[in-house]
Amino acid sequence: MEKQTKKVLSFGKDLGKAHQNILIIGAGLCGSLLALRLGQRGYNVSVYEMRPDLRKVDISAGRSINLAFSNRGNKAMKLVGIEDKVKALCIPMNGRMIHDKKGNTSLSNYSGQDYEYINSIARGDLNALLLDEAEKHENVNIYFNKKCKSVDFEKTTALFQDYQTKHEFIEDADVIIATDGAGSAMRKSYYLGKKFLFSFSQDYLTHGYKELSILPKANGDYKAYKNALHIWPRGSFMLIALPNLDGSFTVTLFLSYDEGEYNFNNLTTEVLVLEFFQKEFPDALAIMPNLIDDFFKNPTAPLGTIKCSPWHYKGNTLLMGDAAHAIVPFYGQGMNASFEDVVEFDNVLDQNLESWEATFTAYERARKKDTDAIADLAIDNFHEMKDHVVHPVFQEKRKLEMALEKEFPKEYASKYSLVTFNEDIGYQEAMLKGRAQDKAILNLLSDKLITVDGDLKTTLEKIKQETNAILEDDRIAGLK
Amino acid sequence: MEKQTKKVLSFGKDLGKAHQNILIIGAGLCGSLLALRLGQRGYNVSVYEMRPDLRKVDISAGRSINLAFSNRGNKAMKLVGIEDKVKALCIPMNGRMIHDKKGNTSLSNYSGQDYEYINSIARGDLNALLLDEAEKHENVNIYFNKKCKSVDFEKTTALFQDYQTKHEFIEDADVIIATDGAGSAMRKSYYLGKKFLFSFSQDYLTHGYKELSILPKANGDYKAYKNALHIWPRGSFMLIALPNLDGSFTVTLFLSYDEGEYNFNNLTTEVLVLEFFQKEFPDALAIMPNLIDDFFKNPTAPLGTIKCSPWHYKGNTLLMGDAAHAIVPFYGQGMNASFEDVVEFDNVLDQNLESWEATFTAYERARKKDTDAIADLAIDNFHEMKDHVVHPVFQEKRKLEMALEKEFPKEYASKYSLVTFNEDIGYQEAMLKGRAQDKAILNLLSDKLITVDGDLKTTLEKIKQETNAILEDDRIAGLK
Repeated sequence: MEKQTKKVLSFGKDLGKAHQNILIIGAGLCGSLLALRLGQRGYNVSVYEMRPDLRKVDISAGRSINLAFSNRGNKAMKLVGIEDKVKALCIPMNGRMIHDKKGNTSLSNYSGQDYEYINSIARGDLNALLLDEAEKHENVNIYFNKKCKSVDFEKTTALFQDYQTKHEFIEDADVIIATDGAGSAMRKSYYLGKKFLFSFSQDYLTHGYKELSILPKANGDYKAYKNALHIWPRGSFMLIALPNLDGSFTVTLFLSYDEGEYNFNNLTTEVLVLEFFQKEFPDALAIMPNLIDDFFKNPTAPLGTIKCSPWHYKGNTLLMGDAAHAIVPFYGQGMNASFEDVVEFDNVLDQNLESWEATFTAYERARKKDTDAIADLAIDNFHEMKDHVVHPVFQEKRKLEMALEKEFPKEYASKYSLVTFNEDIGYQEAMLKGRAQDKAILNLLSDKLITVDGDLKTTLEKIKQETNAILEDDRIAGLK
Repeated sequence: MEKQTKKVLSFGKDLGKAHQNILIIGAGLCGSLLALRLGQRGYNVSVYEMRPDLRKVDISAGRSINLAFSNRGNKAMKLVGIEDKVKALCIPMNGRMIHDKKGNTSLSNYSGQDYEYINSIARGDLNALLLDEAEKHENVNIYFNKKCKSVDFEKTTALFQDYQTKHEFIEDADVIIATDGAGSAMRKSYYLGKKFLFSFSQDYLTHGYKELSILPKANGDYKAYKNALHIWPRGSFMLIALPNLDGSFTVTLFLSYDEGEYNFNNLTTEVLVLEFFQKEFPDALAIMPNLIDDFFKNPTAPLGTIKCSPWHYKGNTLLMGDAAHAIVPFYGQGMNASFEDVVEFDNVLDQNLESWEATFTAYERARKKDTDAIADLAIDNFHEMKDHVVHPVFQEKRKLEMALEKEFPKEYASKYSLVTFNEDIGYQEAMLKGRAQDKAILNLLSDKLITVDGDLKTTLEKIKQETNAILEDDRIAGLK
């Protein structure tokens, strides 16, 4: 396993071609997609993953963790030519199915367009597909059970430990790209190395999460409506459920660790957990006979946001995906943002800049503003999902937005649509425009200057005018 | 020097009295003030400082580092009864003296009130005074040359190393409060300990700073106007100068590390430094014959913001001052905010809560929103000082605000005044109101709805109305 890649110091035109040995740390969703794309471009790619090969060993311990897959992620699948294969793994979710305390439900669509929806997809299935596709390229090699301990970013080498033999070894490369997730070993080396000014933040919510499940009926059917993301919003906490291909739903409880009548710290007995679900989620409880098992077997995990800068050290090393920008899950954009990283990086490679340093610098400059924005948007959506969705004025806003999107598909897109379905604009632009639009609509509704039943064309004009005024006022206040 | 403080486990009423051994890490401005106040309250206080006693050894290496001292800091001086002694160390600065490229100057006051100004004060003189006052209490002991290596926050013990003997020893206490600055050893123990979810951020500006000086005339007089904070704003960089009691000014250059025509990375020769100053700061250069010496002798230091949470671990340990919230220097509030920490903590002690944990929790809940706000305001002011102050619309705004403050002292206070001279409202409230006011004035001026020469009473009403409308729109958009 002791392997020394040969260092080739050819930059310039060779950047976009081959002769370069690229070491990728982590074969998760982002790393395996990156390996596939760089393999397609002709680079010599070695990927080191700390876990076993998920295609051979079930590392989810029976849990199917699912994710929301949407347009920005799909843009990356198109780039590498596997859009159809991914589509086969997807379950469309057309909207949010909101459950009140009495078990009444109402569907709130994600878009006014029938062809715009998000998808539930199993992390393991998608990761396996990406690994298979990457390994089709003989210039791509993936090594499992190799845990990265640290990276020497001056020397462009990484120290690994073999999980089975415990043997430690060093790998050399022309470039190291770390896609090793929120707990990135390379980011830790940046932080602890103190060789350059490294801005870094880890921000935890007061809430944690726990995965539960709704199993299929005996005949394999879904116990709840299949094509929606189910939400039980309760103001300061919530339950959600996403469908799986096998007829089950993965359910997630988001709850404070230590605040409120019920919280993760005080839900310590079966009686209390049942009491909590009976009171807050009776319709969910009715289809979760396995609740107690799940609740006490599964861990409670924290929800954190990670930002940092710079992502790269000279032209030697680069952070990508969650390693550079981990976000909370409430916009369903974590995986999509990491996939979009690869698309953006690919765009920069197309520019054939003079060096890896120029390439990494250009990539971070183009990309960081957008990953910062989706991190902030994801926190916004935490409050929207658990709380705002039940406010009458918020519901009026969504109703109006659905009508506008349906009537004026070219002229109007809500913040949710800008973020989720408009992959040609960046997250930052989507955030700035989307927030201004939200503010405009909420204030116009509140001041009774527009209504849900008013003439749509007039309403659209008023919203546009008010949105532009808000953006202009902000611009002037920023002295730009 | 091996000392074991006796652990007394009496809470409740004793909290506000004595019998409690409090260990303070760091005898800087915050730590020495805290020791003084807790000494006054009757606690047994031991302070461990890593540097030598600054009253005996000159640790500034000939440099006089000065700070801006204003109302919030003075509130703390009143609390401990040394207001007059501090006043004797102060040089009032009534406004910003702005220097253009040709050497023309204009004074922009900080307030419309003559009695509102900030002060230049030498860090060392103030620290020495606080140490003297603290040591007057026999229940306060201060030990120098003892560097904290780490804190065991479960056991409430701290590991120190004696600077001279290199001997390591452990100190025990009922409570440990770390006031050991931006590089806090205890905060590092929180971060590396991973025993609880610790949100943490370190954010560096792209700019660093370097201290320079304007020495006194041969007769001891000041070479520039004494009672102002001098600024040479140049858009993307700036020079400032604050007066010292000895007739000198401490000058600070804020400049990008690697961007722009001139930056810290490329100013490597005497010729380049002189060329840069000749071009950008000719009037300053004329009174800085010692520029080259200072420039190449003094270090370039980074500018960072640190935020974290929680500040405390149970009732055992607490972070205070820069250790909890280090900010950039552009609002002149770093020391003032740390002093206000002590006032706020003292307020919570007055509540006689049932335990140290309840005390620390209440203190962080009351205080953190305000230290977060001043951190953000300080970044805002970086852009204001180096850039905005030269914009015509900004200058009109300041002119108008001075007139309003003079004419309606009870009814109007600018953002700067709210932050600096209105110590009875918190930083967060000052920020929210101040930002809305700034936005209102800039937009009203830009839309020609108010002018600098208009009727002041009418102008005030328009500003108030617009400010309230902005706050209300934000409230509605936040669905609060």
